[in-house]
Amino acid sequence: MNSRNTFILLSTLLFVVLTSGCTLNSPEENTDTDPLPSWNEGSARQSIVDFVNSTTDPDSDSFIEIPDRIAVFDNDGTLWSEKPVYFQFYFALDRLKEMAPEHPEWKEQQPFKAALENDLETLASYGEHGILEIVLATHTGMNTEEFESDVKDWINSARHPQLNRPFTDLVYQPMLELLDFLEENQFKTFIVSGGGIDFMRAWVEEVYGIPRERVVGSTIALEYMSQEGVPAIVRKPAIEFIDDKEGKPVGIQKHIGRRPVLAAGNSDGDLAMLQWTASGEGKRLMLYIHHTDEEREWAYDRNSSVGRLDKGLDEAEAKAWTVVDMKNDWKVIYPFELPR
Amino acid sequence: MNSRNTFILLSTLLFVVLTSGCTLNSPEENTDTDPLPSWNEGSARQSIVDFVNSTTDPDSDSFIEIPDRIAVFDNDGTLWSEKPVYFQFYFALDRLKEMAPEHPEWKEQQPFKAALENDLETLASYGEHGILEIVLATHTGMNTEEFESDVKDWINSARHPQLNRPFTDLVYQPMLELLDFLEENQFKTFIVSGGGIDFMRAWVEEVYGIPRERVVGSTIALEYMSQEGVPAIVRKPAIEFIDDKEGKPVGIQKHIGRRPVLAAGNSDGDLAMLQWTASGEGKRLMLYIHHTDEEREWAYDRNSSVGRLDKGLDEAEAKAWTVVDMKNDWKVIYPFELPR
Repeated sequence: MNSRNTFILLSTLLFVVLTSGCTLNSPEENTDTDPLPSWNEGSARQSIVDFVNSTTDPDSDSFIEIPDRIAVFDNDGTLWSEKPVYFQFYFALDRLKEMAPEHPEWKEQQPFKAALENDLETLASYGEHGILEIVLATHTGMNTEEFESDVKDWINSARHPQLNRPFTDLVYQPMLELLDFLEENQFKTFIVSGGGIDFMRAWVEEVYGIPRERVVGSTIALEYMSQEGVPAIVRKPAIEFIDDKEGKPVGIQKHIGRRPVLAAGNSDGDLAMLQWTASGEGKRLMLYIHHTDEEREWAYDRNSSVGRLDKGLDEAEAKAWTVVDMKNDWKVIYPFELPR
Repeated sequence: MNSRNTFILLSTLLFVVLTSGCTLNSPEENTDTDPLPSWNEGSARQSIVDFVNSTTDPDSDSFIEIPDRIAVFDNDGTLWSEKPVYFQFYFALDRLKEMAPEHPEWKEQQPFKAALENDLETLASYGEHGILEIVLATHTGMNTEEFESDVKDWINSARHPQLNRPFTDLVYQPMLELLDFLEENQFKTFIVSGGGIDFMRAWVEEVYGIPRERVVGSTIALEYMSQEGVPAIVRKPAIEFIDDKEGKPVGIQKHIGRRPVLAAGNSDGDLAMLQWTASGEGKRLMLYIHHTDEEREWAYDRNSSVGRLDKGLDEAEAKAWTVVDMKNDWKVIYPFELPR
């Protein structure tokens, strides 16, 4: 539980400035029976359909028993966008501004001063330690119910700074269809993300239909105590576990206790999870979402500060994992692009 | 994560010598519609049926939405027996004997010498530290798949020292019925135990029908690494989390992220979990299993070394929680007492 790893939670602050105009595409008519209407025909779609068909067919050599149908999904960049920076970071900044009146000292004290002034360059100069201070100030000290209420208020009101839409609009329609397709075929879907576990739980049930006990994420230390005579679980000012890189297989073991048969990610932070999934016996599906669409979303991979995909891209090629080309494989990116 | 708390895992070693003869009772004929055929009529059974009926009736003021129907169960002494000592301790002793040929130094080295010689009095004299050494020697160093295989081999072959039956025979038939009754009514059941999480996962699915991601327990530190080029998750020689007493609400938050509406336990180690459950809004059910049957099982409460129920009994009375009197409320204790 190295606090230096905390950096992962929000990554670097080098913002990539991009055109935010979205071109709407008209998806073709859905057929009644197509479980993946927003996926174009192609090798990615085919590998998904083949995997599900063969592993759920009792007569197939690739058949997987229902309890073993565990599918894990990264969140940032895999189920929703992550640019210009992980959305949870905006929650931290907005919370900080909300809390500022009670902390007049922040006006002069770094890194708070820089964060409150939106001076992200100066904030970045404080490195991981600066980010850690912002995270602990905004994510700890309250009890779990107060925190959940904070997150819910924020997610229902905040808007993406460039796209001017609720963050929850920025989930990937093709991935929502994939989650549903898997659930219909008796796979259990889990989120396995470097993001904060309780941050995600406040909204993932409604947005993805994944129950909150199926969320694995980074954790803050918790303590059960009495608050004015009422039992409460208080969030303590310490990072307990970072669910990223080699932490992801560990988080999977802690929470699920079974090796997945399907893993989807989009960055080198997901590579260990995909390797762990791939190394099990029997049929497996490893998916890398490749951000290739700078018109409709963002295009980035090997040199990105957020969501860097470098080693993972090489390994996907070497091992013939499925790489989803967002530009060519997806008819629409976001649900709001669907015809009404 | 106080290592002094490790004691909880296996508790004290003062064995209670008891008559082990079981008197078989003839349960009355089951009716087709009775979901709890092994429960006698009485206030305990009634409080369970009333709770389930009222919380699943959309017209009731006590109605609970399906996602909120979270029911948590302690394991040792609540779902299966725990006498003369927690069954996981026998696993540790048997493993130690199996490993002894590779550790000739244990013949002279305490506490291993005492454990190998079944000299439990001497073992007890080494206190918590002695138990910790036995646990770490037998539960760590291997990878997660090797450990699961060890547990499965043991649970399929070991027998209770007094009853000469497989340990998995010693689950409580009335509690199996309760788990099923809740699942049928769209409650999600979880185990929340001081026992080792991966020890339980190796057999609970088969025995209780509870999937392994719904097991919360004490944990060993894990590390993802390459073993001769193959990805593995290795169990490191350190206790990471003790899921007992105030740890139980914390374990619930970590794994489930939602306050339960039903909690069942049998000892003071479960009190915090029952208090946390009780302090939520809306209808709740808190169950204490009271070991009152020295003929068919064991009788113990306020002064027991294993499964002590003292403060909890007072609080249950003060707050009108449901206390299950095993002797009077249960027609049979174990499934093997059912008529064939």
